[in-house]
Amino acid sequence: MLSDEPNAGMRRRDLLKLIGMTAGSAAMYQAMTSMGLAATSDYTGPIKLEGDPKGASVLILGAGLAGMAAALELRQAGYKVKILEFNNRAGGRNWTLRGGDTYTELGGATQKCEFDEGLYLNPGPWRIPFHHHGLLDYCKRFGVQLEPFQQFNHNAYLHSTKAFGGKPQRVREIKTDFQGHTSELLAKVTQKGHLEGMVTEEDQEILLEALRSWGALDKDYGYKASLHSSEFRGYKKDPGGGIGAEPVPSDIIGLSDILSSRLWGSLANFALYEFQTTMFQPVGGMDRIGQAFAKEVGDLITFNAKVTKIDQNENGVTVTYEDAENPGAMNEESADWCVCTIPLTILSQIDIQVGGPMQAAIAAVPYVSAVKVGLQMKRRFWEEDEKIFGGISYTDQPISQISYPSTDYNSKGKGVLLGCYTWNGPNSYEFTAMSPEERVRNAVEQGALIHPQYKDEFENGIAVAWHRSPFTLGCSGDWTEEARKEHYNNLCQIDGRIVLAGEHASYIPAWQEGAILSSLDAITRLHQRVLQG
Amino acid sequence: MLSDEPNAGMRRRDLLKLIGMTAGSAAMYQAMTSMGLAATSDYTGPIKLEGDPKGASVLILGAGLAGMAAALELRQAGYKVKILEFNNRAGGRNWTLRGGDTYTELGGATQKCEFDEGLYLNPGPWRIPFHHHGLLDYCKRFGVQLEPFQQFNHNAYLHSTKAFGGKPQRVREIKTDFQGHTSELLAKVTQKGHLEGMVTEEDQEILLEALRSWGALDKDYGYKASLHSSEFRGYKKDPGGGIGAEPVPSDIIGLSDILSSRLWGSLANFALYEFQTTMFQPVGGMDRIGQAFAKEVGDLITFNAKVTKIDQNENGVTVTYEDAENPGAMNEESADWCVCTIPLTILSQIDIQVGGPMQAAIAAVPYVSAVKVGLQMKRRFWEEDEKIFGGISYTDQPISQISYPSTDYNSKGKGVLLGCYTWNGPNSYEFTAMSPEERVRNAVEQGALIHPQYKDEFENGIAVAWHRSPFTLGCSGDWTEEARKEHYNNLCQIDGRIVLAGEHASYIPAWQEGAILSSLDAITRLHQRVLQG
Repeated sequence: MLSDEPNAGMRRRDLLKLIGMTAGSAAMYQAMTSMGLAATSDYTGPIKLEGDPKGASVLILGAGLAGMAAALELRQAGYKVKILEFNNRAGGRNWTLRGGDTYTELGGATQKCEFDEGLYLNPGPWRIPFHHHGLLDYCKRFGVQLEPFQQFNHNAYLHSTKAFGGKPQRVREIKTDFQGHTSELLAKVTQKGHLEGMVTEEDQEILLEALRSWGALDKDYGYKASLHSSEFRGYKKDPGGGIGAEPVPSDIIGLSDILSSRLWGSLANFALYEFQTTMFQPVGGMDRIGQAFAKEVGDLITFNAKVTKIDQNENGVTVTYEDAENPGAMNEESADWCVCTIPLTILSQIDIQVGGPMQAAIAAVPYVSAVKVGLQMKRRFWEEDEKIFGGISYTDQPISQISYPSTDYNSKGKGVLLGCYTWNGPNSYEFTAMSPEERVRNAVEQGALIHPQYKDEFENGIAVAWHRSPFTLGCSGDWTEEARKEHYNNLCQIDGRIVLAGEHASYIPAWQEGAILSSLDAITRLHQRVLQG
Repeated sequence: MLSDEPNAGMRRRDLLKLIGMTAGSAAMYQAMTSMGLAATSDYTGPIKLEGDPKGASVLILGAGLAGMAAALELRQAGYKVKILEFNNRAGGRNWTLRGGDTYTELGGATQKCEFDEGLYLNPGPWRIPFHHHGLLDYCKRFGVQLEPFQQFNHNAYLHSTKAFGGKPQRVREIKTDFQGHTSELLAKVTQKGHLEGMVTEEDQEILLEALRSWGALDKDYGYKASLHSSEFRGYKKDPGGGIGAEPVPSDIIGLSDILSSRLWGSLANFALYEFQTTMFQPVGGMDRIGQAFAKEVGDLITFNAKVTKIDQNENGVTVTYEDAENPGAMNEESADWCVCTIPLTILSQIDIQVGGPMQAAIAAVPYVSAVKVGLQMKRRFWEEDEKIFGGISYTDQPISQISYPSTDYNSKGKGVLLGCYTWNGPNSYEFTAMSPEERVRNAVEQGALIHPQYKDEFENGIAVAWHRSPFTLGCSGDWTEEARKEHYNNLCQIDGRIVLAGEHASYIPAWQEGAILSSLDAITRLHQRVLQG
């Protein structure tokens, strides 16, 4: 498993290896960075594990969501269940940092979170799509209170250091103008007859009407600065009340300026199924979900249990682990079956007795190197000065994005911004290579190009680079299409008495739903195997 | 003012007159219905009324938001302030109905709201755009807790009884497919050279890239059923976890079917500035705002005061009013100045001593006839069965829309749907002409074409037709461009010692922000007049 003090050289080699593995897939990287991972859920309701397991025991490795969901359901089905967890808390990547928390990353840097009471950062998962039915169902059963997570805010910014003199543009302006200009172009060529043979004449008439509506065009199908286009992109002077209250239309940005700015590249994000309305977050922090699971199965967990060996024979599974708080103190735990949710980054370093195909699969999946930085600000200037309530601004700088808190809107207090969320690739490697303090300083400097208020309002920050996380060595499984074809099914098979689960064993990598669905599928198959004797 | 029992014939004549006044403006009606009223705010911060009013007194008519904001600010500036209010509560159209409330409309029908504890309907305003800065600022000062109001839900429905066999379509499917098909068409004509002379060759190259991104096109700029288009419109089978978890792409709807369905007509709604993210609602009901104002100025209000005459001379204003609870008991109140926020529908029936231009303006503005129906359902089937969390489905039926509650998401309890919100025109007149019970029955019958669960889950309902509201005789001022040119400035002038305020005296009619900004502008000008002596 993990060496306690990995040397920097090894870490760097690992990073370079990862870069090598994604080289040549720039398009995919681009897609992953800007889109997150496109995936959803096919959950149809709580599983029912019917049939008597006759006292069979299951040892679960990992007390993240996959492990705890397995424990909950297997115990309910009649199994004897135990969980070993490396960390000193339950939840895994379902994790929230609050004032007073400390975090030591690989390399030894320890950060103490200095956020004020009530403020937090979710270093791992932070949002829940409406179609992640499995996770939402557990939230419902546990009574975890949800609030909307704002992904798309029309009033947030799109920013490029290379366009508009570095001045951030409002999403609503870029989106409306792109939609307007392209609608005007299509209307013009329609009127000129260039759609003949592609669209019937009758449909062309309706198309023109539709483009006028969709693109905020005028009666002659022109996209112009006007009160009408301002009804979509916003005004130069908003309408008001009383005398002198007439609105003044805003100017529009020319198509050529929009195209060359490349800010249109962020617009597709907002339309992705996985980012569509209504998304959620638990009130108070993502770890409310992990805590709710732990309330159910916490009694089954042995913490600080650093697994070093997973052995099996035809009678059962034996797992060797070290007490992470007493290095050298080795223990063993045995059971009839094992559900292993250990991340592949770590599992690939553990002596596990499974067949060649699963061994190969375990070794085949690199992990993305996401970095998040939380920045506490003295006041919610993005709301007070800029009227941005929640949502995300995108930038071409390494921080990639700034996300505004989706809670406590319009309140007078402080707030924590997600000041950097870089997902993978060179930017994330660069941030990973920095000390936590450097990451925070860089996030503040880059963010200040979008919000000059940073300079005055920044108070403190905390930075999590997932490749330096001792308990996952990365953020989530980074499958290529080729790796999936060759290894995915081998990874998910039951090998003797061992089955793997976790987001890495799903088509929804990086999402909690992937962990949940993978786990439910694994234990359903395991249960069938057990019943077959 | 109001006759206590208006005869139905008179009411009908009024309605027909209103229909007459909007005849010939079908386009505008369409725009108003589908878009609401396009308007925002130019508030720049709390007003400061500096200078000593030397004990001057102001009588305010109406304890809605306009009246209470005026009272709050004028008292703070040193004025002696009183408020007369016809209703027996503060807030005006800022109003929330809960279980146990009763409401008697013109015609005499009394409804008792039977909602369960915690459920409510906002018959009047129900959402707050992020740019309604004046209103949001009062919310902040008062500590009114806000939560996001979900306007746009990709997973809600677009429904036409005349398209797709009457089967509702998900917004995300219609939107993605419309965007995809039109992007494909524009890409094709670009490739064929038809944009020559309109777009430079260099820009055409970027345009093609942008269309591929925006429209979810494939590498050949085609919009096809694929995993890629499914990443935006949703899948036939969502990706899952473990074995057999591969996603299956969804089919796409042909352009011709989308065009002829006319469902694209609702898409523009979602992009309007006034409906853009992030919108808000007060936690617990819109009347939390009115209550917060009343906490500040409630001591100034005389309730049940039915104004019958507004007189002025060079020394001051005298208002005659009847005690609505003791008909025939007349009273008088005098002051140096008067801020009148009485809706024009009612003010036009009161003997008010102002000049001809203001008299004409008061008579010139018809009011829209919005109707809302709240339906309590035994369970939140739209969430449980259909995964619709908040947002709005649109239909071509008279109910126009169904809005799902933007609160208590994913909870196990009951919920209240907004089962009908028709804004103006024939549908609203028809609903207004029905008894409350008929309105509810019709809303249930029409809604059941979209959600068959209505039949089993409906428990009780309540219906508010604003043209039958005794305290406003309509929903809000319905300005035409022509009426604005001729009358708006005359309406807003200070006439002797009287100034009018309210949403009707703003460019943001129907929105609370219009009332606030109109009021702040009116009292600012009034204060200047007072200081001038």
